[in-house]
Parts: sequence; structure tokens; C-alpha cells
Amino acid sequence: MIRTVVWNENVHEQKSQVVRDNYPDGIHGCIAKSLNASGKISATTATLQQENHGLTAQRLAETDVLLWWGHAAHGDVSDDVCDMVCDAVLSGMGIIFLHSAHFAKPFKKLLGTSCNLTWREAGERERLWTTAPNHPILDGVPHHFELENEEMYGEPFGVPEPLETILISWFEGGEAFRSGLTYKRGAGNIFYFRPGHETYPTFHHDTVQRILTNAVLWAHNPQQRIADVHDAPNVPIEKSLEPLTQRGAKLHREGEDGFR
Amino acid sequence: MIRTVVWNENVHEQKSQVVRDNYPDGIHGCIAKSLNASGKISATTATLQQENHGLTAQRLAETDVLLWWGHAAHGDVSDDVCDMVCDAVLSGMGIIFLHSAHFAKPFKKLLGTSCNLTWREAGERERLWTTAPNHPILDGVPHHFELENEEMYGEPFGVPEPLETILISWFEGGEAFRSGLTYKRGAGNIFYFRPGHETYPTFHHDTVQRILTNAVLWAHNPQQRIADVHDAPNVPIEKSLEPLTQRGAKLHREGEDGFR
Amino acid sequence: MIRTVVWNENVHEQKSQVVRDNYPDGIHGCIAKSLNASGKISATTATLQQENHGLTAQRLAETDVLLWWGHAAHGDVSDDVCDMVCDAVLSGMGIIFLHSAHFAKPFKKLLGTSCNLTWREAGERERLWTTAPNHPILDGVPHHFELENEEMYGEPFGVPEPLETILISWFEGGEAFRSGLTYKRGAGNIFYFRPGHETYPTFHHDTVQRILTNAVLWAHNPQQRIADVHDAPNVPIEKSLEPLTQRGAKLHREGEDGFR
Amino acid sequence: MIRTVVWNENVHEQKSQVVRDNYPDGIHGCIAKSLNASGKISATTATLQQENHGLTAQRLAETDVLLWWGHAAHGDVSDDVCDMVCDAVLSGMGIIFLHSAHFAKPFKKLLGTSCNLTWREAGERERLWTTAPNHPILDGVPHHFELENEEMYGEPFGVPEPLETILISWFEGGEAFRSGLTYKRGAGNIFYFRPGHETYPTFHHDTVQRILTNAVLWAHNPQQRIADVHDAPNVPIEKSLEPLTQRGAKLHREGEDGFR
Repeated sequence: MIRTVVWNENVHEQKSQVVRDNYPDGIHGCIAKSLNASGKISATTATLQQENHGLTAQRLAETDVLLWWGHAAHGDVSDDVCDMVCDAVLSGMGIIFLHSAHFAKPFKKLLGTSCNLTWREAGERERLWTTAPNHPILDGVPHHFELENEEMYGEPFGVPEPLETILISWFEGGEAFRSGLTYKRGAGNIFYFRPGHETYPTFHHDTVQRILTNAVLWAHNPQQRIADVHDAPNVPIEKSLEPLTQRGAKLHREGEDGFR
Repeated sequence: MIRTVVWNENVHEQKSQVVRDNYPDGIHGCIAKSLNASGKISATTATLQQENHGLTAQRLAETDVLLWWGHAAHGDVSDDVCDMVCDAVLSGMGIIFLHSAHFAKPFKKLLGTSCNLTWREAGERERLWTTAPNHPILDGVPHHFELENEEMYGEPFGVPEPLETILISWFEGGEAFRSGLTYKRGAGNIFYFRPGHETYPTFHHDTVQRILTNAVLWAHNPQQRIADVHDAPNVPIEKSLEPLTQRGAKLHREGEDGFR
Repeated sequence: MIRTVVWNENVHEQKSQVVRDNYPDGIHGCIAKSLNASGKISATTATLQQENHGLTAQRLAETDVLLWWGHAAHGDVSDDVCDMVCDAVLSGMGIIFLHSAHFAKPFKKLLGTSCNLTWREAGERERLWTTAPNHPILDGVPHHFELENEEMYGEPFGVPEPLETILISWFEGGEAFRSGLTYKRGAGNIFYFRPGHETYPTFHHDTVQRILTNAVLWAHNPQQRIADVHDAPNVPIEKSLEPLTQRGAKLHREGEDGFR
Repeated sequence: MIRTVVWNENVHEQKSQVVRDNYPDGIHGCIAKSLNASGKISATTATLQQENHGLTAQRLAETDVLLWWGHAAHGDVSDDVCDMVCDAVLSGMGIIFLHSAHFAKPFKKLLGTSCNLTWREAGERERLWTTAPNHPILDGVPHHFELENEEMYGEPFGVPEPLETILISWFEGGEAFRSGLTYKRGAGNIFYFRPGHETYPTFHHDTVQRILTNAVLWAHNPQQRIADVHDAPNVPIEKSLEPLTQRGAKLHREGEDGFR
């Protein structure tokens, strides 16, 4: 069982009746339920309002894959939690960023860019096209599928060139968008998935649920986590792999830590 | 003329006689001089000790390419300057990170990873091999060249998979390393170049100077800078490119800014 | 001046009045004229019907960038010319494949995949979106532009993950497509540009002409061509860069050519 | 069980006593045995001398992952078998190219480049360094390991920029090389692994065996094969996903096949 945590800021669910109607158990509850139905994933949830946003170092160490949904409260996520999440990714935890999480702190930190885009909330039709058939994340996904009501996101999307572009979207209003992008940072697999606006029932959609389940399986790196992702050890001359004699000037004393 | 700034923390030059002997005008002075000799580049310098580290928003707006050398004082670089530099890169400024700048704040911020590595200061031989012949940065560079004394950097190097790997190093003590890496972030071209330890005369080496000159020409994006790299504009329904009618529920009022 | 050849199979121009009306001087003539108008490019043309398809080894050696349009007669291109073109690309010639050249022999050979897609010839609206703002190929190109009548190409497009995806298309009939893709093979830069169906006046469109001019400038590698792209030289032990003594068994006699 | 075929040209085993001493059951037999020991792989073998080189369309359809070793007889592999193998890869079969298979027909066809390199057969020490820690292919592999006697391969290696560079080599004689490269072509995962010269016992080395076992698990795409990788279907107007009316001129009659 892949240990998975669905993180949600859980703000709109408290304030908006339409969001509550779509997701009576919260977006996090809806997604976790569908992941658990796969039989291969053991998903729990965490929310912004919990202590430490529900994400201790201990819990992250025991999380194989984290999903992240946020929108109205990106700024309320503490920098410490953001740093912990990013370090966990570098050490091997998979992470899936959903929709408006393009502006989430850990997304921006892991990618290093502004992650901006254009947008329109008109409930228009979105049709997603697969560009990488038989990619593990697209297992069982048809070449195209539709979401009758979605928010529009438009290019240019301010992200680095991905490892793979696996989905692109067509919007009723005339835009196109790169909607499924994979990255790797350190030992961690990253997937960005565009759909998922809170005012529409996107996370109840069969194909969306299938993609997220596939994405968790894909993002899971079963190897032991890297212990210290920031380690930059000195290799002493006397332990060099080939015979070596000190030459030239030296700044560091033998065994001294490097600068940071 | 490509407007270039060579930034140097300029710390070891003040403290170490051997560094001062290698670089009487500072590492920044040595590099700027060699770039200016190309006839295509107009290089000036900036250092940590200057007000605002010598890097105002105005100066960055008028800089086509920035080179960055740092080692002992990464932590003394202000977060504000780091943010300004990264935004300038996203808007189209090229940037070249040299050697120990793998731990520089803007490098880590732009790449989003820990950028760690192993190291040994033994003055050993480094031999660099080109892996992308006829890459613009390698114009006139032989398939291999040697630096008789260099610090060793060893893999794994904690950076994202680059756009291109163009140089790899062989070290006398038995290590190998990816020494020339290109990235693009926003509209900005990024080059990481491994050699350049301050206790050796690396930046006086003909081929190193040639590579840095080539890299400045390559990194230069002559297009007008992107005005606001964080802009995420709403596209109103009435301005949609295809006919569109509002459907479904809405969270945002028309014309309202998006969440961040 | 960048020495450029616009290659066209020039078949529909002979058979179809509508194509002749769009391109009285042939697609090749129209494109060459617009490239020459840039003042930076010296473009000539070549067609399938000419001896050797107009492409001798000598001419390719003196060509900086080749553009390729083909559709009905891919199979009539000789394998020898295809091989010559591909070797020229590996040695440093830039190449731009236009529209239905996705099935051209050199495109398939350079990419190694089937390059298949879905299609519909309905004269529908295509809107192209830039996904890499300030990319050299997109200099002066707005974030989106429209072609009122184009053939539709649909995903999945059977090509390798590109170096960069710089344009994606929206189609009136509901499809989306990756329409501007960059690759590098050997020392040669490759650009695939989707629009350009012969029954529409696409190559008269200002923005299309601008993109093609930019693409020629981008694809141009000014360095000296690689002499023999297939060379795999033996490095004799006595010329090794570090001291080396023969150990273990040997299959090859010293100085012998390797197997192929 | 992952259905795996180890293909070997099996030429040196017949002619050279030293190769026979290293691999009494052939290189293919040695590799298949070690893969089978994993308990997750069911490996059989095929050789050049067998009818159709042991590779029928039926057998390839039932092969999850193919390993390929060749050296002296690349030219004896039939173009038909090469085409079948490449189509199988595009449809989803994984493939692992070993050592001198850098010049194998299917490797060159899938990558589209010359795949050349420099070489020296001196039995020198090779040390491989991992550049992508915790990559699935490197599960359980230390940051570096040594092969006391190997053939040297030197850069530049004439291959496209890979999806990932996961191993680089240090050679006693002074060269460095990108020794573990991943690619994806169509639905097929591709891994190139450098070591494996026939005059040395490389495929008996524990870490090499571990890497190859990992690589088979990684390359395996469990999804149903793509039926026709060359299919380029017309989408009729009356079946368009959005309402569409024929506009402009048409070259093709409705329902007609596209050109190739």
C-alpha cells in the first residue's frame, strides 16, 4: 500500500455553499476516498488549519506521495512547512500539485519560476488530449476526455520545460494549455495536473480519479529516503580512490566543513 | 555590445595572499578583463561589499548577462537581492554561475534543489570533455582540455536534469562530474560552469576564458524584458476569443484579482 | 547572410488550381521571398523534380539552414538524399520541417519515431499559443495568433519528447496540438512548425513569416561543420592522456578499425 | 514475471577463447541467468544465427523487455528485424542496449544520430558514478563502483540529449563518458548502458547484474501494446467534437487516406 496524504487548504469548503455541495467531505476527502478505492493506496488527509498544517517531519517521512490543493490561502502556509515538504521531495517523496496549486509555495520553490498563467472562471468546456500514449499516468485514459465545466488556465504557463508533457487542454473560449507535466527534483517525482476548480465537481470525474490514482503509483519511489539532501561531504586526500598528492595552495584545513 | 556584470563576493581576495596573487584585481576583475577583450562584451563588476551588493533593480534591468562567483559568504547575500536577480533572470537576463556558486542563493532558488556535491581541495588535475560538439558555448573549444590544479567536485550533483549537459570532468583522484550544464528559467538562459577555485589561476586559462565569453554570447537574450514576470491576468468572459456564456458557479467577481 | 535553401516537393502546385492560386511561385518561392525580405537571410529553392532533388553534397555543405515542405511525394525522395540531409544536420546544418513534413523521410530518420497524428481538412480556425515567451523563434510574436483556415492535426503526435515545446494550437473542431517543437541532433538544430497546409495561404501570414525568419536565425550554427559525423577513432594506448599499461585480453590489434 | 529476451550476436563466443572463457554460455546466457535469479523476470535468449535472428513478430509481441548486445556483426542484422524491433519499442516494448550496441541498427534507428564515440581496448579501470541517486535503475547501487578491466569509450558520444543522464564513467587513461542514459520513444522505454566488453567478465559483476535487473523492471511498460504505431487516421468533419462546417478548399476527398 502506497502511503499517501491528500493536503488541502480547506478554505472554500468552509465559506462557499457551492463548494460544500460539490465536496461535502472536502476536496481532500473526495480525493482520498477515490485513491483508497484503488486497493493499492492508503490515503489520509491533512489541512491547513491543523497544527503544523497536519504535516510534521515524522509524517512526511512516512508519506510516499503527497497531493496538494490550495488556492485562497497560499500565503498562510508557513515557510517551515514549505521547506520540510520540499526537502521530503528531494529525499524521495512523490508530490502531485493540483490546479491552483500552481501558486503553492512548495510548487514555486521546487520549480524556481513564477508559475504564472492567465485564467477565466466561466464554467466552460475543457477537453484534455494525451500527448504521451501509454505513459504510466495515462494508463486506461482515452486519447481525449472532457470536463463540461472548468476554469480556464491559459499560456504562457511560467514553469520550466518539463521532463515530459503528457496532457494538453483545449478550452471552449479559445485557449490551449499544457495540463499534465512531469518533473523530477532530487529523488522525488513531481506531477502537475491542471483541472480541479473548486466550484465544479471535477474530482468526482472517473477519468480524473483514474489519472490521480495512476499518478500516485507513478510518483511513488519505493527506495529508502535520502538521509540528508543537503549533505556536501569533503573527501579527504588520504581516502581518494586513486593515488593523490596534495598540490598547490589550500584554503580549507583537512576535515573542515565547506562553506555554504 | 552585450552589457555584462561580473559579480564576486570578493572575500578571499581580501584574506588570502595566494588568492590575491592569483587575482590581484579580484576574480571579478580578471573575468571582466577577459570578456572585454572579446570586443563583443562590455563587462563591469559588482561585489558583495558594495551597497545593495552593487546590484540595484535599475542596474539589473540594464544588464544582459550576469556572472556570479561566491563561496565563503553565500549567507551574506540579502534575500532581496537574490529575489531581484531571480526575477531579472525570469524576465530575460542571462546568468552564469561559476564553481562554488553552486551554493549561491540565486542558483538554489532558480533550480529548486539542494545543489549539493562532494569536494576535495587537493590541487589535482581536472580534464574536461565536451559532450555536445559545436554547442555555441563550446565554439573553438577542443574535445578535451586540462586544468593542472583544481578543486574536485564529485557526483551526485544535486541539480535538476539540465536542458543540456555539454561538459563532463575527469579528476585525477578518481571522480567524474557534470561540469557544464544549461538551463532555461522563464526567458532567462542559465549556464553552470564547474571550474574556478580561487586558489588556482583557472580564470587565466585561455580555454576557460573562451568558454565564458561564448557563454555570455549564448546567454544573451536580446528581446525586450518581460515587464512583470509574476503577472497572472484574468481574461474576462466578454473578451474571450471564442463566444462564451457564463455557466456554473463562480467564486470570483468579474475583474477581481486571482488568489496568490 | 545565412545561406538558406527552401525545399519543396512542388507537386500540388502542378496539379491543383487552388494551390497554384495560393502560391503562384510555389510554396518554396513564397517562403524564400519572405526570408530574403529579412535582409539577414539569403534563400534559394530546391524541388523534388530537380536532379538529385536539387540537393548535392556540395550544396548541402554550403547551406546553413534547410526548410522542408513535403506531403504527397514523401516516398519519391531518394534514400541517398535523405541520408545526405541527415548527415548534414548532424554536422551542423539547421533544418526546419513544415506541416506535412512530419512524414518526410529525413524527419522520421532524425527523430526515430513514427511521427503519426490525426488530421482533418476542414478549413477550420487554428489559434497558436506561445508556451516559451521570449524564445528566439518567438521574437516579436504575440502570445497568440490565428489562422482562419487550416488543416487540423491532432494528438497524440508520435515524436520524442522535444528539447522545448514553444507553441501549442487550439482548433475550432475541438483538438489541441504541440505545434512548435525544437530538437537538436548532433550539431544541428531542428524546428518543427505545424501550420502550412497547401490549400490555404498560411505562408503569406505575417506572423508565420516572422516565425520562419526567426527559426532560420535560431537554427543557424555558424561553427565549422563537423568533418565526419560517423568517425569513431581508436585512441592508442601509447597516446593515452594518463599513463596506461595494457592489461587483460584484447580482441583488436593495435591501430585496427572498430566494428560497425 | 516480466517476459524478457536477451539478444546477442554470439559471434566472439565462437571465435575467441578468452570470450568463451568469460562466458561459456555466451554473454546472453550469463545475462539471462542473472535476470532470472531476480525472481521477477523470466528471461530467454535469442541470437543472430537463429532463423530471423530468433525474433519473430509474434515473439516480440510477447516480449516485455529486450536486451541487445552486438559488436562485430551489426551489419548482418536484417533491416526487417531492425524495423520490427523498433516498431515493437514504439508500441511499448522496453529495450536495453549494452556497450558496443551503440552501433546496433535499432539503436541508431531509434535515436536518429550517428552514435559514434572514441575507444581504446586496454583493459583499464573504469569507475562509474551515479548522477541520479534513487533512480529506479540505480536501486541499491552505491554512488560509485569499479570495473577493474574495461574497454574505454570516450566523448563526444553522438547521441541526442537523453531524458536522463544517470551514470557517468571515469577511465584510468583519462577519459570521462556518459554511461547510463534513458530515452523514451513512443511507448517504449530505452536504456543505454556502457560497460560490457566481451574480453572482460563485466556481466558477472554484482552491481552490473543489479543494474540490468533494475533496468528491466524500469523499462517494462505493463500497458497493452499500441496496435498500430504508424496509424494516422482522418477525423471526419461530421464526427468532430465541436460543431464544424467545411470551409475553404480541400485536397482530400472525405474518408480518403492521408499521404505518406
